[in-house]
Amino acid sequence: MTDLYPRISKEDAVVLLVDHQTGLISGLVRDYGVDEFKNNVLALANTAKFFDLPVILSTSFENGPNGPLMQGLVELFPNAPMISRPGQINAWDNEDFVKAIEATGKKQLIIAGVVTDVCVAFPALSAVNAGYEVFAVTDASGTFSQQVANAAMLRMAHAGVQLMSWFSVASELQRDWRNDNEGFGALLAGQLSGYQNVIGTYMGAKNDVNK
Amino acid sequence: MTDLYPRISKEDAVVLLVDHQTGLISGLVRDYGVDEFKNNVLALANTAKFFDLPVILSTSFENGPNGPLMQGLVELFPNAPMISRPGQINAWDNEDFVKAIEATGKKQLIIAGVVTDVCVAFPALSAVNAGYEVFAVTDASGTFSQQVANAAMLRMAHAGVQLMSWFSVASELQRDWRNDNEGFGALLAGQLSGYQNVIGTYMGAKNDVNK
Amino acid sequence: MTDLYPRISKEDAVVLLVDHQTGLISGLVRDYGVDEFKNNVLALANTAKFFDLPVILSTSFENGPNGPLMQGLVELFPNAPMISRPGQINAWDNEDFVKAIEATGKKQLIIAGVVTDVCVAFPALSAVNAGYEVFAVTDASGTFSQQVANAAMLRMAHAGVQLMSWFSVASELQRDWRNDNEGFGALLAGQLSGYQNVIGTYMGAKNDVNK
Amino acid sequence: MTDLYPRISKEDAVVLLVDHQTGLISGLVRDYGVDEFKNNVLALANTAKFFDLPVILSTSFENGPNGPLMQGLVELFPNAPMISRPGQINAWDNEDFVKAIEATGKKQLIIAGVVTDVCVAFPALSAVNAGYEVFAVTDASGTFSQQVANAAMLRMAHAGVQLMSWFSVASELQRDWRNDNEGFGALLAGQLSGYQNVIGTYMGAKNDVNK
Amino acid sequence: MTDLYPRISKEDAVVLLVDHQTGLISGLVRDYGVDEFKNNVLALANTAKFFDLPVILSTSFENGPNGPLMQGLVELFPNAPMISRPGQINAWDNEDFVKAIEATGKKQLIIAGVVTDVCVAFPALSAVNAGYEVFAVTDASGTFSQQVANAAMLRMAHAGVQLMSWFSVASELQRDWRNDNEGFGALLAGQLSGYQNVIGTYMGAKNDVNK
Amino acid sequence: MTDLYPRISKEDAVVLLVDHQTGLISGLVRDYGVDEFKNNVLALANTAKFFDLPVILSTSFENGPNGPLMQGLVELFPNAPMISRPGQINAWDNEDFVKAIEATGKKQLIIAGVVTDVCVAFPALSAVNAGYEVFAVTDASGTFSQQVANAAMLRMAHAGVQLMSWFSVASELQRDWRNDNEGFGALLAGQLSGYQNVIGTYMGAKNDVNK
Amino acid sequence: MTDLYPRISKEDAVVLLVDHQTGLISGLVRDYGVDEFKNNVLALANTAKFFDLPVILSTSFENGPNGPLMQGLVELFPNAPMISRPGQINAWDNEDFVKAIEATGKKQLIIAGVVTDVCVAFPALSAVNAGYEVFAVTDASGTFSQQVANAAMLRMAHAGVQLMSWFSVASELQRDWRNDNEGFGALLAGQLSGYQNVIGTYMGAKNDVNK
Amino acid sequence: MTDLYPRISKEDAVVLLVDHQTGLISGLVRDYGVDEFKNNVLALANTAKFFDLPVILSTSFENGPNGPLMQGLVELFPNAPMISRPGQINAWDNEDFVKAIEATGKKQLIIAGVVTDVCVAFPALSAVNAGYEVFAVTDASGTFSQQVANAAMLRMAHAGVQLMSWFSVASELQRDWRNDNEGFGALLAGQLSGYQNVIGTYMGAKNDVNK
Repeated sequence: MTDLYPRISKEDAVVLLVDHQTGLISGLVRDYGVDEFKNNVLALANTAKFFDLPVILSTSFENGPNGPLMQGLVELFPNAPMISRPGQINAWDNEDFVKAIEATGKKQLIIAGVVTDVCVAFPALSAVNAGYEVFAVTDASGTFSQQVANAAMLRMAHAGVQLMSWFSVASELQRDWRNDNEGFGALLAGQLSGYQNVIGTYMGAKNDVNK
Repeated sequence: MTDLYPRISKEDAVVLLVDHQTGLISGLVRDYGVDEFKNNVLALANTAKFFDLPVILSTSFENGPNGPLMQGLVELFPNAPMISRPGQINAWDNEDFVKAIEATGKKQLIIAGVVTDVCVAFPALSAVNAGYEVFAVTDASGTFSQQVANAAMLRMAHAGVQLMSWFSVASELQRDWRNDNEGFGALLAGQLSGYQNVIGTYMGAKNDVNK
Repeated sequence: MTDLYPRISKEDAVVLLVDHQTGLISGLVRDYGVDEFKNNVLALANTAKFFDLPVILSTSFENGPNGPLMQGLVELFPNAPMISRPGQINAWDNEDFVKAIEATGKKQLIIAGVVTDVCVAFPALSAVNAGYEVFAVTDASGTFSQQVANAAMLRMAHAGVQLMSWFSVASELQRDWRNDNEGFGALLAGQLSGYQNVIGTYMGAKNDVNK
Repeated sequence: MTDLYPRISKEDAVVLLVDHQTGLISGLVRDYGVDEFKNNVLALANTAKFFDLPVILSTSFENGPNGPLMQGLVELFPNAPMISRPGQINAWDNEDFVKAIEATGKKQLIIAGVVTDVCVAFPALSAVNAGYEVFAVTDASGTFSQQVANAAMLRMAHAGVQLMSWFSVASELQRDWRNDNEGFGALLAGQLSGYQNVIGTYMGAKNDVNK
Repeated sequence: MTDLYPRISKEDAVVLLVDHQTGLISGLVRDYGVDEFKNNVLALANTAKFFDLPVILSTSFENGPNGPLMQGLVELFPNAPMISRPGQINAWDNEDFVKAIEATGKKQLIIAGVVTDVCVAFPALSAVNAGYEVFAVTDASGTFSQQVANAAMLRMAHAGVQLMSWFSVASELQRDWRNDNEGFGALLAGQLSGYQNVIGTYMGAKNDVNK
Repeated sequence: MTDLYPRISKEDAVVLLVDHQTGLISGLVRDYGVDEFKNNVLALANTAKFFDLPVILSTSFENGPNGPLMQGLVELFPNAPMISRPGQINAWDNEDFVKAIEATGKKQLIIAGVVTDVCVAFPALSAVNAGYEVFAVTDASGTFSQQVANAAMLRMAHAGVQLMSWFSVASELQRDWRNDNEGFGALLAGQLSGYQNVIGTYMGAKNDVNK
Repeated sequence: MTDLYPRISKEDAVVLLVDHQTGLISGLVRDYGVDEFKNNVLALANTAKFFDLPVILSTSFENGPNGPLMQGLVELFPNAPMISRPGQINAWDNEDFVKAIEATGKKQLIIAGVVTDVCVAFPALSAVNAGYEVFAVTDASGTFSQQVANAAMLRMAHAGVQLMSWFSVASELQRDWRNDNEGFGALLAGQLSGYQNVIGTYMGAKNDVNK
Repeated sequence: MTDLYPRISKEDAVVLLVDHQTGLISGLVRDYGVDEFKNNVLALANTAKFFDLPVILSTSFENGPNGPLMQGLVELFPNAPMISRPGQINAWDNEDFVKAIEATGKKQLIIAGVVTDVCVAFPALSAVNAGYEVFAVTDASGTFSQQVANAAMLRMAHAGVQLMSWFSVASELQRDWRNDNEGFGALLAGQLSGYQNVIGTYMGAKNDVNK
């Protein structure tokens, strides 16, 4: 029987951040606002860090116009494998990238990147073919337009890729707030501006009572 | 042979309203306007009441920033089971939630919630896996952006979840206007501002003739 | 010296609601969503009622496809002058309408209607010409498209009409929350779905403390 | 082997126009502009007429606020079966409707209606279940919002309904311009404002040369 | 004292339709949908015809890619002066165009054209300078984008041009429905698809009563 | 002669931040995305800090649902006058607020707040009337919709308020990069995600050469 | 086992450009901006040329209003088979078209055209049925609206067509930058305006160092 | 008497292109699509070249992340004064910039730049103050969002700046097609993709006749 709900588990998952490079983001990503996109990518990264998931970084020609990883990503994962691909566009074509995944022993791949239709879709489809459960984080991935993003999402969905938001990834990993109530709350407050305001109102109300 | 048209029946359906809490709505929901969203949620709730369907409410950390259920929901269902989850993010992970569903004996789950990609998608996929027929009410569910909602809708559709609007839920339950012509008309007039105006014009015309 | 800030005063203002008729709204208004528009019109009406401002209603051919006033407006103002214009499109061309205004002795006109570029703009410009201070409530007025609304707003602004939202009208009339803290709060909670949720979270927080 | 390209044939197709009623259109349809929607519905209707396809009309409570069929539809098909449903929301629940289809002997159903998620999706899914090939004409069908339309389109696509535009229906029926070059050109010129301008430029150019 | 409400009068107005040519519309106009724009232009033209206003047509290089006037305009005004400008971009630079206006003896110019920022704005500003009252019909004029249209509207408004919709022009000319109730109703029904539906519902209701 | 270019000067300007409170932002602001709005407000605040401008904070009912100032504002300005208004909606009606401004001796007011049409427009218009030069920072101010924001911007512009973005405020204050090249660059990099990526690419390129 | 990742190969692919004719583009395409669409089509064409893929051009009634191929396409492929279809709407119904494909011996079809729901979807579905791997280039194909494009994309995806952007086609063909680093970079720079700017910044930075 | 129509003249105008630098465009401009913006800037530049207007280029910190002028601008104007500002943000604060303008002896300034609210608005307002006639080319200028662009356009319009599109600049300079029919047609065909297609259809039609 088919499992219709592949579910991310802290024990089985590895995060792949592919080509979140400064030149690619500023030159190509137009389906999200600049502030929203930066927040989403860092939110996924901080989620990975919070759950102590293995992270694999990869870049394409970082010594060139594509540029280095966007600010903040490298500092978050100083010890993560960093696969600087000498030319392969599909990260899965790079042996070191696949080996780094295999070295983690994980079977669930959480992937985001720039641009969605290439740097996410290609390795996601390769991984599905190779038998992995693949979760594409659509709002931490960017591309030329919402129309191109839609086409890429449809392509991936029809191949069996699970389409996620960074928040649904975080929620699935957390499973239960009681696993670390404060830590998880801090993660959300730091990355969800809207929720941060709600917390502010709530704390203010409590203070009011206590006055 | 596959049934390509799972059809909601008054006898077989239960409505699950998951985490329509004040803090989550104001902090996170941005894919619908505030008036439209409030109307859609109350429309689904009043539909459930009109058809006397069993309703199960659930909240996540209501004693915290997530806040209580939005105004109107509790008053509508004073006797509904209210599952205050102590921490489980996926309502299906909460035994009481599943037991409350099982206690109804229904096999069709109509579900809406905040946010779509987590509080709706997670239990919807769990329920599909458990053999239920699942109907996600997309316009009574909200999330961060239309892009995130699209990804969640695609994920659910590919797992076999039926994507509905609250109006299609009401229409499927009603089946035939003659089952209660006036009652159903009143339900629609109360929740469909556009239709209310049409009724106004129609009644005005009748009055004109009778003058 | 020019007064650059014509300021609405409870003592000097009258509210003109022109042609918020069911047929005109459903047939012509497309620059606001149906729920948002209904809410905005009732919000302005309830604001007028809360401050006990004189209100003048007017309709154009209500015995015809234009239809009666939208639900709720008549009930709110059972004793308001109701000028059923026999044919004049610009309400200002109707002597009874102008007389009704003059009868109030007010010099500040708060006006909203359907459609913005005709039923609001025409009498607004006539009134400016006649020496009144005119405040057009743009979000309680609707028309064919945002482009048509923009053109009408520009036309009115250049003639000296003050462009307002219903919320800014309510706020200017209230001046100070202390004039009736609870009443004003109830007005806002009833018409601002977003604010209603914030109040819900706030009250929930207070309850949490008191448990 | 599955036929991945169910193809409309003049010999096998019948057109179902469900609930294109004046009240429903003005009260509920907001995912298309008023001019665009009227044009699309009449375009589909004229396509049916041009190809002399059997057409079945149906209404729901036309003696009520839902109103009569929109102007032009009845005149186009004076002899078409007109199924005035006494109460059934899903037209397929009305025996006369199904019998009218069966009477045509056709196995391909081209369906459009108001609203998409109910009056189109319900009979479309019923028909798929009954073994028909179903083609939903999405741009001659309207509903509350693009989000609701998207959900309905996804639901239908996953059940095997073919999603079409009126222009793709016309093109598939025509197959080859040579079947009636002038007639088909006139059909398109009459319903495609954009194409009409192109024809104007083209004819103008020819006239220029001949001067 | 400044007249803040220049008001169109049947006795004083002439309509100028500038460069509504097939090539310009299909090549350049993108701020309105094709059906909406065609409807708006014909609506203004039919308004002029209904009120029997003098109309002056003008084209730029109609024997070339700009093409002939869009379908319907010429037939509507067989006797209107047609100024085929041999090269002047600003119609006001063409003596025949200005003479044709002067020959009407009118002092109010109602102008629409393609594109807004050139074919409307240039002669509108010239006419203002020459002492005319100028009314630009913004929704019967089109251009490259809404941003370009906004800039042109601001430029014209600051020079004293009155920004109108075609519907506000028709309404201002009509002044009072009683001047020709049926005729004006027919004009609106023919050009306002949304209103046509409302009329349909209204007439249906009357028929219902009479049954 | 009129000065058509009122120009912000470090010596003459004071920054007024009015009602950027957590409850108001989450309940009412919908014309900007949550990440974009938070960034814009903090960008204006950090600009004020960078240039060491006097800042005056004000809140309305912070002990209530409106909530405390959004996170980060208070910490930035520990010594700024904080005017907690006991009820006045227009901050200018609060004597302490006006006195705080007068105490700075500045004649140029840079103002932002929530919501634009009330908390910004009211004091801005009061200040213009009182003879100040007023600069409204439109993108660090939020309200219910872009339509309401447009109306408020038009109202303010017609009263002589200068409409600014936070970036244009920062640029006008800086005048010349050489006044503090590094400091200003750091300010921009910290608040302009898009520019941060460009800097990343640039620095990467320099590193490439030096390898 | 199903191959979930059909992958374009330089050895197996042929490019089909169907009906990118001037009349069809200007008359019918409204889901992309004019500059964006022209760029996308030429980008796909230049990609085909760069990889020396066989290209098959086809037109429908080019001696008529549909017009000739858009500027640039013919010059790029002087020796490509050009199938001027005498009437068949679905290019696959034209024997010469299919034969031209068979003559290439390729089994992967990369297809784009105008309009998406007809000229792309019809032959794409025919080809899938005939056993080809089909890749529809969605952003080099245009149609009436994004809604119609969405319906067509869903239809194709459910039949097994791979939805691509031109950039993902180019990337899949290139596989590895090292296959021709400079050539591929030039291709991208020429068609990606955003990337061109990034390259400009990068080269500028290098020059700065070398000064 | 005020001249309400300041009109650009070939004899009196100079074009100022301010800070169209690669880093600024890719990092900051989000109110236009990348292809549309590049086309608009080059269209204005080619217009200047076609009319042989004096052009003054200026950059801000081109040896830094702001980057060099976008590709194509420098090559177009090899002999134009290039004012590399050492720090002044408002180009008007740079003596060389003002002197370069004065050296042309022109009194009409056509200005475009990045970003609109700073690099265009600041020098435009300075120039108005200095007595120049200023024409801001809004669609060849870009900034963070349409909202910020709107605010800047309103600010400039209220100071007397004329808001133009590049096409209206070209049209005003040309005055009459006969001044150089072919040259002007070529200019438009090269920069107006939509018009290019219309020309293609027109030329095709002529060829058809001549066959």
